[in-house]
Amino acid sequence: MLKTTKLSDPAFNPHSLNKFASLMTTGNGYMGVRATHEEDYTQQTRGMYLAGLYHCAGRGETNELVNLPDVTGVQLEVNGEPFTLMSGQPEHWQRELDFSCGELCREVIWRAPSGARVQIASRRFASMAQHPLLAMQFTVTALDRDVTLSLSSGIDGTQTNSGRQHLDELSLRVFGQQVLQGAWATQSGSHEVVITSHCQLSQPADSCFTAKNRKLLQNSTLSLAVGDSVTFEKINWIVKRQPDTLSLDTFCRRCLNDLQACAAPGFEALRAESQAMWQQIWRSNRVVVDSTDSRDQVALDFAHYHLAAMTPTHDERVSIAAKALTGEGYKGHVFWDTEVFLLPYHLMTRPETARSLLRYRYLNLAGAREKARRNGWHGALFPWESAQSGQEETPEFAAINIRTGLRQKVASALAEHHLVADIAWAVVNYWHATQDEAFMREEGVALLTETATFWMSRAVEANGRLEIHDVIGPDEYTEHVNNNAFTNYLAWHNVEKALHFSRQFGEVQPAFAQNAANFLQRLWLPKANEQGVLAQDDTFFSKPTIDLSKYKAKAGKQTILLDYSRAEVNEMQILKQADVVMLTYMLPERFSAEECLANLAYYEPRTIHDSSLSKAIHGIVAARSGQPEEAWRFWQAGCEIDLGDDPHSSDDGIHAAATGAIWLGAVQGFAGLSVCDGELHLSPTLPEAWRSLRVPLCWHGVRLQLDITADEIVLTTTQELSLWLWGREVCIDGEVRYAKSDFLNSKSGTATREGVV
Amino acid sequence: MLKTTKLSDPAFNPHSLNKFASLMTTGNGYMGVRATHEEDYTQQTRGMYLAGLYHCAGRGETNELVNLPDVTGVQLEVNGEPFTLMSGQPEHWQRELDFSCGELCREVIWRAPSGARVQIASRRFASMAQHPLLAMQFTVTALDRDVTLSLSSGIDGTQTNSGRQHLDELSLRVFGQQVLQGAWATQSGSHEVVITSHCQLSQPADSCFTAKNRKLLQNSTLSLAVGDSVTFEKINWIVKRQPDTLSLDTFCRRCLNDLQACAAPGFEALRAESQAMWQQIWRSNRVVVDSTDSRDQVALDFAHYHLAAMTPTHDERVSIAAKALTGEGYKGHVFWDTEVFLLPYHLMTRPETARSLLRYRYLNLAGAREKARRNGWHGALFPWESAQSGQEETPEFAAINIRTGLRQKVASALAEHHLVADIAWAVVNYWHATQDEAFMREEGVALLTETATFWMSRAVEANGRLEIHDVIGPDEYTEHVNNNAFTNYLAWHNVEKALHFSRQFGEVQPAFAQNAANFLQRLWLPKANEQGVLAQDDTFFSKPTIDLSKYKAKAGKQTILLDYSRAEVNEMQILKQADVVMLTYMLPERFSAEECLANLAYYEPRTIHDSSLSKAIHGIVAARSGQPEEAWRFWQAGCEIDLGDDPHSSDDGIHAAATGAIWLGAVQGFAGLSVCDGELHLSPTLPEAWRSLRVPLCWHGVRLQLDITADEIVLTTTQELSLWLWGREVCIDGEVRYAKSDFLNSKSGTATREGVV
Repeated sequence: MLKTTKLSDPAFNPHSLNKFASLMTTGNGYMGVRATHEEDYTQQTRGMYLAGLYHCAGRGETNELVNLPDVTGVQLEVNGEPFTLMSGQPEHWQRELDFSCGELCREVIWRAPSGARVQIASRRFASMAQHPLLAMQFTVTALDRDVTLSLSSGIDGTQTNSGRQHLDELSLRVFGQQVLQGAWATQSGSHEVVITSHCQLSQPADSCFTAKNRKLLQNSTLSLAVGDSVTFEKINWIVKRQPDTLSLDTFCRRCLNDLQACAAPGFEALRAESQAMWQQIWRSNRVVVDSTDSRDQVALDFAHYHLAAMTPTHDERVSIAAKALTGEGYKGHVFWDTEVFLLPYHLMTRPETARSLLRYRYLNLAGAREKARRNGWHGALFPWESAQSGQEETPEFAAINIRTGLRQKVASALAEHHLVADIAWAVVNYWHATQDEAFMREEGVALLTETATFWMSRAVEANGRLEIHDVIGPDEYTEHVNNNAFTNYLAWHNVEKALHFSRQFGEVQPAFAQNAANFLQRLWLPKANEQGVLAQDDTFFSKPTIDLSKYKAKAGKQTILLDYSRAEVNEMQILKQADVVMLTYMLPERFSAEECLANLAYYEPRTIHDSSLSKAIHGIVAARSGQPEEAWRFWQAGCEIDLGDDPHSSDDGIHAAATGAIWLGAVQGFAGLSVCDGELHLSPTLPEAWRSLRVPLCWHGVRLQLDITADEIVLTTTQELSLWLWGREVCIDGEVRYAKSDFLNSKSGTATREGVV
Repeated sequence: MLKTTKLSDPAFNPHSLNKFASLMTTGNGYMGVRATHEEDYTQQTRGMYLAGLYHCAGRGETNELVNLPDVTGVQLEVNGEPFTLMSGQPEHWQRELDFSCGELCREVIWRAPSGARVQIASRRFASMAQHPLLAMQFTVTALDRDVTLSLSSGIDGTQTNSGRQHLDELSLRVFGQQVLQGAWATQSGSHEVVITSHCQLSQPADSCFTAKNRKLLQNSTLSLAVGDSVTFEKINWIVKRQPDTLSLDTFCRRCLNDLQACAAPGFEALRAESQAMWQQIWRSNRVVVDSTDSRDQVALDFAHYHLAAMTPTHDERVSIAAKALTGEGYKGHVFWDTEVFLLPYHLMTRPETARSLLRYRYLNLAGAREKARRNGWHGALFPWESAQSGQEETPEFAAINIRTGLRQKVASALAEHHLVADIAWAVVNYWHATQDEAFMREEGVALLTETATFWMSRAVEANGRLEIHDVIGPDEYTEHVNNNAFTNYLAWHNVEKALHFSRQFGEVQPAFAQNAANFLQRLWLPKANEQGVLAQDDTFFSKPTIDLSKYKAKAGKQTILLDYSRAEVNEMQILKQADVVMLTYMLPERFSAEECLANLAYYEPRTIHDSSLSKAIHGIVAARSGQPEEAWRFWQAGCEIDLGDDPHSSDDGIHAAATGAIWLGAVQGFAGLSVCDGELHLSPTLPEAWRSLRVPLCWHGVRLQLDITADEIVLTTTQELSLWLWGREVCIDGEVRYAKSDFLNSKSGTATREGVV
């Protein structure tokens, strides 16, 4: 069996409950279940989500990922004392998420306030083999005296999204002595969910059921002799009912049958079946690093685990939320994060998943066209925040304005339009990686031309050229500017590729071709100044700067908004993340290493990195520009976004894009992978700390493995494959070893990117 | 100042958090605020309710009292450690509700896990002088070292009713550095509520505001030198916006102005103003007992406090919920409890409140007529559970049926019709106590004739007489029976009084008079058997009995339903509360002391007392029947319903009717007050433990005070008043002393009720 690292929650700490609940989420792309403890804590937020199950809870709200009734809670009393680690003493603590099989385990020895000691061991996994299945075990052992236990567990429909309730209760019932079932519908009636739980105790107990106030519980009491254990095993089956198929009653009966069939082999068999699926994932895709810092491999495994646990492979109508299925941050909405930070991983490992994620956008084209039309433009303006229907889901309000006392309006939905070009960029990347003609002919060309059409209508005539006015780039601390460099370059790329691929695969409308040619010729693409620095927008260089060190020290927390209003921040050279650095990352063909470095040097001091998307990209650009040590520092800082010491960094979910960026940093940064003019380039440059790096990839349907050390690279393919290594084209079939010194003029360890620009 | 007893929460105990949160609710009839601690506990349910603010949260739900956004929570950290009594050590604990001024106080010395010791003192009251006002203070003192504190408090809109969310957020904002304001509307738009909070710290602090996920918070950090204190003072103004008056924006501004005007004099002045109102209440109405058991006076003061705190004197469209404004049990619905258990207190102390409570039913006659019509009857069938509109609000389902696994349907709304006659009974009592002709002419006669009309249509021709079939009496363990004695007698009383008063005050329709006469002549009134026992219904005597001791030992918990389904309980002589005993209580003119005793003796062993309405009535009947010691045991057991040791007795609210019954027991039991044929009778008989009893009353607009000892009674009136004392008519003006021995033949201490039958 392939062993991975494990993520460990080092100690019980009420401050970090929600961080580890997010980080250790068990999931399978269909469901995500926050790693909350079985017992309650006031600070602890439970959460179980099904991918794509969104609902809008009332006026002034938007659709959000629905927090489903909880099944993980177990209320235990030992001799009448409620088990909680806030009281008594934990005498032993071990808690781990085993990435290799997706199992969350905890083992605690608890001394109750009255002195009785019990061992409590619990395990939980969401099955990778049977998506609706969530299995749990909860074992109590009496260590030094006989004890009386009471256990309550069931299906708890009091869960809300921070007080927003989405579900009406349709029915609650019990079958025999072991099965509980509840059915709920979203208040709009758009979705129904049925949860069935098979509860079994390994020892005889007095049990009764209660159904009150949205909770269906099995309550059991039993006596445990010293040295004895009792195991509470709970197998849960969580499914959405498709409307217009079976009646609710028949469907519920079917759920009962499915659960009983599934529960029959028992926890261990179910676990083995799920582990086998996880093992396939690890064997295909695990990136392995030999680093002097053992946290690096944990970060890579953490990223990989979550990339699998968050990705819906079962339904093309669903994409990936900014916090995956690990919490309610950003309400479970889909951002450009998916196309820019997550899609490259899928492209290079399991391209059918990348296709499915692009199909999600394709299936939501109607909403994007509608949004463009409502705003007076043509083509497709995808929603800045997307849920299930493709309509705009960005909330109206953000934090309180410190000057007015009113909540500030969120401007992204109005002006953060680069997302449109990002989607087109992802389509082009998909083509390069897969050469999937069927997709390009249908979905690809449609996405490219609709997005290009948007840009052509979005540009305005000004200063004798076409300009793009009143946008927000990725840097959200600079709002409503003209000719944002990132946006203009990406829009140009979008239109250029739309013209190219619609010529290659579609029938080009003459009007479209003419418009596109005009746009490409006349759109203003800002030029670098004498220092090689590109202005972020028309007015950026004219704004004052301030010392940001205080805020950079608390990167990610947006503390600047406690001292300045958004309007004030807007009028200074203050960046949440650097647009131009991002631009040099996304369109590497367009910028030389020197230009990349110049922009990095100018913008980084002005960037707070309040966006989780920021540091990783800086790292990749630094690596590509021949600064692997600087890159490694950025990369590690990117890993710290979720895995660092801040106990509240991930309370409302992990940063899905940041997990993608961990992979991106290793592969696009240190393995030096880039795609230029459709061709695969590798320029590996490891940081000192990394003795080796193994990366498995998939390119044009061929499996390719890179084994990189400081001095050489071994490339292994399943078929003949051409690629560019350190700027020289090589053709590989089977396993080939290359010494870096054979490719590079200098042996300084800094690879130049000759032939790549 | 008149001092009362105080209610004390003896120790911090996670099991009894919700019990004391209910018992110590601060309220003023307009709002009720559960006595939850400032810090959170997993088991603790916060609650703030405005009388009459109901809403239905979704399909399958009924209207319920809305749990409003919380203002009482204060999250404190001491040197980064969250303050909670689950961790560290409480070294001192005192917590009291001072009935005399309605103030809840707590004083704790807490040793944090790290060893730092702080004293935390908090106070809170809902103003009796200004209904929308809730004032709080929270003081922290550093006892043995300098500490850093962080405090978060604000308006928390994540509150729900067990997961049911009723409110949409309309706006959240901040004014200056001290005022937070939120506005919410019920999801149906029927109500809007605006909460404005003025937050002030007595020491300088670093503060910022956050508004996220339905929480508007002021977050402050400050340093406290050893020996220093900081007081956080929060004055809250909680109001409903009347639709169609001011715009929301103008209304919010007005709330801000009202709050600022009100907060200006500060906590102590506001407290004094509220206390002055409470003192008036106590001076007018306090019942004083000199008992060997000090708990007796606490129970009387507890009852009195809650009778004032629960009663809406500001709005006739609102009545009193079964759990008052202290919790969400029974969803805040109004039952017969109001008319039968609470109204007598108001009649005899502040009759304008009794009038207002009867007006609530009068204003809801349309809904009652509609319910009768929908079920094929005439007149007014009041809803078994009522909220704001008079429509039936009884939930569809109760607990799980242990045989079928399905939830059992609640039958009360279908058949528990005695409520109709109970309301008529209360109208008659109101007339006797007040002689309020204006009310009788309009509301009184309308209520009597509409309810009487219902009974006339409800009776059926059977066995050559009129019978009432398929009803549920107060004993809900016996469903769907014919000729329930309680119902038939009360229905007869209803029709008889309707005929009488409509002749006296209204114009009697000939058809009504003829129907009524026929009904009174032909309705079957079950007769006592040879032992003097009245059958509860036609089939009751034919059912088997079982040993109930196991269930009686857990009275109030309905444990019998864990062993038997409702259908099974129905087929045995098992009573939740005794109908016939209740009947002898309600219509004392109709039953001799011997008959009362015979029925008590027969039914009590068959009664589990699973209803909180049961024991107190048994006590009154026992007292009236010359068994004061037995009566006292029942009375004390009735006091224990909320005040006893069971830590969960009152989790979802106090038993409002039981507080009424504490007063009833003292006044109708031991002071022996009854009204027979419209005249006031007193037959005081104190239990051994009571050395004296003082009762202030109001009768026909005259203030009357009773000072009772074992041997004599002193009657004091403000005007001339005639009444019956121990069966003999007396006329009092000023203060008159009577020796019991002058009235009774025997000196056994057992008063007979001669002349009363």
